[in-house]
Amino acid sequence: MTAAGRPGADQGSPRTVLSRAFAILDTFAEGQPEQTHGSITRATGMSPATVHRQLAELVEWGAVERTRRGHYRIGLHLWRLGSLAPQGRELRDVALPYLQDLLEVTHEVVHLVVLDENMALYIEKLESRPDVAVVSRVGGRLPLHATGPGKVLLAYAPPAVLNEVLAGGLTRQASGTITDARELQRALAEIRRTGHCISRQEMTDGAASVAAPVTDAHRRVIAAISVVVPSSTPDLSPLVPPVRLAALGISRELRSRRHVAGEHLDD
Amino acid sequence: MTAAGRPGADQGSPRTVLSRAFAILDTFAEGQPEQTHGSITRATGMSPATVHRQLAELVEWGAVERTRRGHYRIGLHLWRLGSLAPQGRELRDVALPYLQDLLEVTHEVVHLVVLDENMALYIEKLESRPDVAVVSRVGGRLPLHATGPGKVLLAYAPPAVLNEVLAGGLTRQASGTITDARELQRALAEIRRTGHCISRQEMTDGAASVAAPVTDAHRRVIAAISVVVPSSTPDLSPLVPPVRLAALGISRELRSRRHVAGEHLDD
Repeated sequence: MTAAGRPGADQGSPRTVLSRAFAILDTFAEGQPEQTHGSITRATGMSPATVHRQLAELVEWGAVERTRRGHYRIGLHLWRLGSLAPQGRELRDVALPYLQDLLEVTHEVVHLVVLDENMALYIEKLESRPDVAVVSRVGGRLPLHATGPGKVLLAYAPPAVLNEVLAGGLTRQASGTITDARELQRALAEIRRTGHCISRQEMTDGAASVAAPVTDAHRRVIAAISVVVPSSTPDLSPLVPPVRLAALGISRELRSRRHVAGEHLDD
Repeated sequence: MTAAGRPGADQGSPRTVLSRAFAILDTFAEGQPEQTHGSITRATGMSPATVHRQLAELVEWGAVERTRRGHYRIGLHLWRLGSLAPQGRELRDVALPYLQDLLEVTHEVVHLVVLDENMALYIEKLESRPDVAVVSRVGGRLPLHATGPGKVLLAYAPPAVLNEVLAGGLTRQASGTITDARELQRALAEIRRTGHCISRQEMTDGAASVAAPVTDAHRRVIAAISVVVPSSTPDLSPLVPPVRLAALGISRELRSRRHVAGEHLDD
């Protein structure tokens, strides 16, 4: 995704100094973690001199690091600041022991996912000798309608989010992706009724998952967790209790903390 | 730590637009993940109007999020960008299965640590029913001289880093902290000789650790891992082989990858 597709940079070429710096940072993305002066100039539409000047300041502060080959990467300073985000910090810290237990029981892939700009953002991923290859990455985003945790987040999100997802089109990702709006709405209603979501080959052929919602102190859904197993698994229902138990455990611990992840949404 | 203590903001009040934004972001730190308009104004020495204007742009882009109580936190957008840093991404992805195995064997606390501005920066921390309380946090930094992974990083760092650490003073953190320069140099020589580091109550009373170096494709030390156990453990030597095996496993896998973490340091 180029800078032009990101918020704050969608009214043509960025005009303020800060928005130009943000546009440069937004050229770094999942799938393109390295950039050059040339690729940044092309992606942002800014002049080479401006890109050069801004990059120098970004490097000095440590937002980006320059490699000897003239490539740029996101720097440790930005990683350290980013790690202070409540979803990547309190939520992740609370969830981690539960995710590790879930991993020890299932020996597959375990995910912690939050809603970010109508996408499913993967906050944590643990795997242990999995029999299944999945496309998720920590820091990466996947479509809400095509992933188990995404559908869980969608099921409890404000109606506007579903409307925007439907307006964006339910793009097919794998053989089992739900591409029909009615069918998706039925699936979301079923998630709200049962408190979990079973998916088969919706994001990746060969993979199936069980997902469940995580709630904050106000009982609002702020995250989802999932276990991914091979789609050859005939019966996924035995996975539902452990996944729901882990999600309920995380939710209970979030309620017992004063500063909870997601509190900023509504306190 | 206030913005004045950070690079890029140490020549009095920040002068460029970008350095002002960086100074605001740097008020967010380990131990103070929430800020207010007032606390940012005080910490940066900038005018309330400037802080207000810059905060609005930072919020719009998603670098920070505003809570309903007028507090600010680091936002998901910055977390997502930060997760692209090679140390938090490739290194962490490669290391994670080895750290998980180490955790399954030891059932204590496992760390992945890199060097950041003469501090030990904790990239990953896994724990499993530990019998010991440690002060480390993912995204947090601890003094190099007082932690096992820190001493390992220091043992293989350029001499300038050791000189700066010594110039900064070897502050006592716990009953076993090495506060004598000669003694620290002997400990570092021992690490280089044996390839591992055993520490007792140097950062936290009640805790002991075994640490070992992780090397990149050029056989340079780019990280350290450690296992922390109760200091009541009489003999730590049985932990040395598993910790070294995990560190060697991570290093071997980094060598076999084309794009290795730390490659930007010297290629």
